[in-house]
Order: sequence, then structure tokens, then C-alpha cells
Amino acid sequence: MKLTCRKQQRTMCAQYCISFADVEKAHINIRDFIHLTPVLTSSILNQVTGRNLYFKCELFQKTGSFKDVYFESLFGGIPAYIVVPQTAPNCKKLAIQAYGASIVYSEQSDESRENITKRIIEETEGIMVHPNQEPAVMAGQGTIAMEVLNQVPLVDALVVPVGGGGMIAGIAITVKALRPTVKVYAAESLNADDCYKSKLKGELTPNPCPPETIADGVKSSIGLNTWPVIRDLVDDVFTVTEDEIKYATQLVWERMKLLIEPTAAVGVAAVLSQHFQTISPEVKNICIVLSGGNVDLTSITWMKQAERPAPYQSVSV
Amino acid sequence: MKLTCRKQQRTMCAQYCISFADVEKAHINIRDFIHLTPVLTSSILNQVTGRNLYFKCELFQKTGSFKDVYFESLFGGIPAYIVVPQTAPNCKKLAIQAYGASIVYSEQSDESRENITKRIIEETEGIMVHPNQEPAVMAGQGTIAMEVLNQVPLVDALVVPVGGGGMIAGIAITVKALRPTVKVYAAESLNADDCYKSKLKGELTPNPCPPETIADGVKSSIGLNTWPVIRDLVDDVFTVTEDEIKYATQLVWERMKLLIEPTAAVGVAAVLSQHFQTISPEVKNICIVLSGGNVDLTSITWMKQAERPAPYQSVSV
Repeated sequence: MKLTCRKQQRTMCAQYCISFADVEKAHINIRDFIHLTPVLTSSILNQVTGRNLYFKCELFQKTGSFKDVYFESLFGGIPAYIVVPQTAPNCKKLAIQAYGASIVYSEQSDESRENITKRIIEETEGIMVHPNQEPAVMAGQGTIAMEVLNQVPLVDALVVPVGGGGMIAGIAITVKALRPTVKVYAAESLNADDCYKSKLKGELTPNPCPPETIADGVKSSIGLNTWPVIRDLVDDVFTVTEDEIKYATQLVWERMKLLIEPTAAVGVAAVLSQHFQTISPEVKNICIVLSGGNVDLTSITWMKQAERPAPYQSVSV
Repeated sequence: MKLTCRKQQRTMCAQYCISFADVEKAHINIRDFIHLTPVLTSSILNQVTGRNLYFKCELFQKTGSFKDVYFESLFGGIPAYIVVPQTAPNCKKLAIQAYGASIVYSEQSDESRENITKRIIEETEGIMVHPNQEPAVMAGQGTIAMEVLNQVPLVDALVVPVGGGGMIAGIAITVKALRPTVKVYAAESLNADDCYKSKLKGELTPNPCPPETIADGVKSSIGLNTWPVIRDLVDDVFTVTEDEIKYATQLVWERMKLLIEPTAAVGVAAVLSQHFQTISPEVKNICIVLSGGNVDLTSITWMKQAERPAPYQSVSV
């Protein structure tokens, strides 16, 4: 999702594109626009994993997404053009239209989206708001971590799905500023494992081609703004298969009655994975950020295929 | 659902089959077995209805049902036979088996279920626990109201779906004992409107034949134990059409991301109905009990048909 709007100033910090001070400012700016989302628990999922899991229900956030809240707070009333691939879920397209924003379709490749975005910027004299490299959005998403640290004071780790990496970057900046011993783990689709590969190589390594995954919110690659934060402040990356994502989605639907989208289940799948069992039992209290509730209910044909996957051996970085 | 087990004593009070003292006792007995379920809000649904809605999330209760918790706490380890119609949702059958209880199938009629239950009682020397006329279950369900009165101190009304009426009876006993000015409203499928008709006539008027409704949890008729409580302590009954139930289910799924079963949506449909608009605006803070999350996700073919229904004129009693 890319959004073009009228020009406006923004500030960068030296080392990373945002600092914790930006998160604190964002907290003040957006607090009237957002819900304080609840943290839920599930005794069944605690039993399954042998840890205390806390689910930060960002899927209850207005429109199911923090990014959308940010756009609304920042650009309310200003014409906005959202560039999305034709393949985006219908419910997301409908949500965009409900805002009064205009949808412009691109091919699925990053190149096509960038070209079309450039054309709109020229035609409208707008500015580009990048969907996951925009510092103000990252700062806003960092406030999720401020809430978690208040709501789950004994939290040992946060698990965050990573696509472009905006959410995990904001969260990592915040957690490491306020409580540096708390771990920040990235959860990623194996089919879109650019974050894992980047951490492994020590350099930004985008997905070579548009990845295929049911978790459409994590298809993007991490980028120039999020990579330095992820490189330095994210403690580990867990990759999960499509079957693991589907199984985790169904588990949360059936056991927790929360209608998450598969993107949000990536974090749950990571905590259920065999690889996660190698994490010390002292990392007991784990908060999984459930972001994204844009489920196309009329198209859940994959449900019937979602069998419990065979234990999957992923590799730590 | 009917359950036969070894005999055990129970107490009745004079006027109704339970008193608030029974609810208080149940509260002590079951508190270690249950979750304190959260109350959620939705700004969108507040806007739609012009009231402050509070959703008591009993669908998060262990197994999605208070009744099941009661059975577990009372009969753990004792052989149990559950009589269900062949047409019961698969997920409910699976949940019964997961307890280690035995399923015995009946036809869909009350008569068939009663005959089969009688036969099992004779064969096993068990006792019958009625699915919705059992005083101990009603007392347990009354504790939901104790929680609501604590969690939403300014609540003006509770809206409760009614099938056999056990939940609303327990809730009405509790609310009228602790805070008599708070209203208790029943929500019922128009296709299974025995509660509405009973209140209208002033006498117990069961459904004449097995009703057809997507809200399978409210197919039962109210009975000898629940009727006196409903007659005296329930303030009003709201009936809703199948389309209204489907629309409300979809609305809660899409807007609140809560995977309620259609039975739980009956209360939401009632509050959305035109009839509910005749309730004084002073009845501002309304708590809807969302009970039941046993959704057969693989069989939601009705979703595509769930259009917003035309305003439906229901009648107050």
C-alpha cells in the first residue's frame, strides 16, 4: 500500500530513522485516534506452548490496522491515492474506499507499484508515504510496545510479524529504550524470508521476486529505513511454512474466537514452531502482536486444507 | 444437549427454582474452573445504534460455553452420555468427544431426545441433567451477571439470547437481586419465538414443532423451571429474523473480529432491530452477552446470502 499526499516536513534521527522520542511524540499525537487494545490470554495455547502467552489485540484497532489510523490522523480530508496490487484482498480495497481514498491498481511487483506511485506523485504534486518505511508510521506503531510494557509488566519477549518491518522497527526502538532485556522476535513467512536472510548475511537482502504466501501483509521486503533497526535491535527471526500459518490461523479462530487474518497468525505460528522450543524456558511471558483482521470470509477455501503440519525445523540466525 | 450422570442432591427455592443465594454459592464453587471473560466495546457499533454497547465475551469461556464448564466442574471423571440431535454442528460433537463424554444421537424432536434420555437413565442408573432447566447450571450462568455489574458499573440493560432460558433466568435472578432498576431483555429468533409468545399469553407456550433457525443454540423452548423467572423478571422480548441474525453475525465478525456463532448474534440483532429503537434513550449503556463460539467454519455457505435486511417491525410485549 502506498499513499501520496501533499508535501510535509519530517525529521530523521542520526542512527536510525526514528528515536524513542519520536515514539513518545507519536503517542501524544495519535492517542485520541486509537483504541487502547486489550491483551487476551488462552489457557489452551499456554498448555500447548508451555509458556504464558499474551495476545495484544491490534486487530481490534480501528480498521484493523495501525497504519490506517495513522493515515486518518495525519491526512484526514486531504485527497489520497492508494496504490495496491490487483491481487489485494477485497476487504482491504473496500476499507480503502470507505475512507474516501482513491484506489490505483498496480501489478504485483515492487517495480510496478513504484512506477505507478511516481506517476501519481508527478500528476498530483503529492508526496509519497511509504507503506512500511515511513518514519511517522513506525513511530506510531512503536506505541504498541509502550502499551504492552504497561499491560504485561512481566513480559520477557514480544513476537511481531515482519513484512516491510515498520511495526517491528517501531516496537524494537521502544522496547530497547524502555526495557532493553526484553527480547524482540521477528516472525516471517518462509516464502518471504528476506528479514531472515538479511540478518543471516548481515546486509539488506530483499525478496528476489514477489513471494507467494497466504499472509499477504508480510509479502513486502524490509527496506532502507527498517533494516538498520532490525539488524541491531531484533534478537531473532523465526520463519514459518504456509501450513504452519494456516494451522495457527485456524487455531486462533477456533480456540480464541479471534478472527485474525493469516498475517497476524505468523507470530502465533512462530511461537508454536519447533525452533521456538530452543528458546530458554526463562523467556516465559511472551506477547504476540496480533495485527490485521481483514479476512475475506467468503474466500476461506484454504481452511479445509489446514492440517496440523509436521514439525518444521527452522534455523536460528 | 442432555446429560445423564450419577444421582446427586439439589435444592430448590420456593418461588423459583433458584435464588440469588444459589448464584453466590455457584460463584464460589466454579470460580476456579472459569475465566473472568472480558467486556469489549466497538465504536462503530456504538455509532450504528446510538448507544454505548458492552460485549460480555462469554464466547471466550472455556469451550465457548458456560454449560460445559459446569458439567466439567460437577461431573469430572464420571461417565456422561450426551444426547444430541444428528443435526448438531460437528464442532459441538467434537467438543463433547474431547471431554471424553459419549454422544448418543436422537431425532431433532424434543420427544425423541426425551425418550432416548429416559432409556439411557434406565440402562445406566444415571440421573438426567437437563440442558437448560437444570438449576445448578442456571445458578452458574447467573454469575455472568455478577461479573457484568462489576465490569460495567453504569450498565442500564443486559441483552441475553434465549433458547431454553437457563442463562437469562440465572442472569435475571442476579440482576433483579443486586440492581433491580437494570433491565433484562431477551433476544429470540422469530422462528423459535416461544418466549415471546409465552410472555404475550402469560402462560408457557412451547414451540409447536422443532424450529428452523441458523441460531441452533436458541432452538429449545423455555421450560417449567425458567418460565416463572422469565415471566416475572424479564422486562421485554425482542424477536429477530434469520436475515437479521446473519447480518449481525457478519457485522461482529467483520467489525469486531470476534468469531461468534449465530446464536450469540441474536442479542446483537435485537439491539440493531427497529423495535429496539423504541426503547428510551435513557437506557444508554447496554451489555450484550455473547455466548457461543462453536462456528463450523467449513460450512459458512450462508455468508454470501447475508445482506443487510430491510427494517423489520417486531412487536413489544
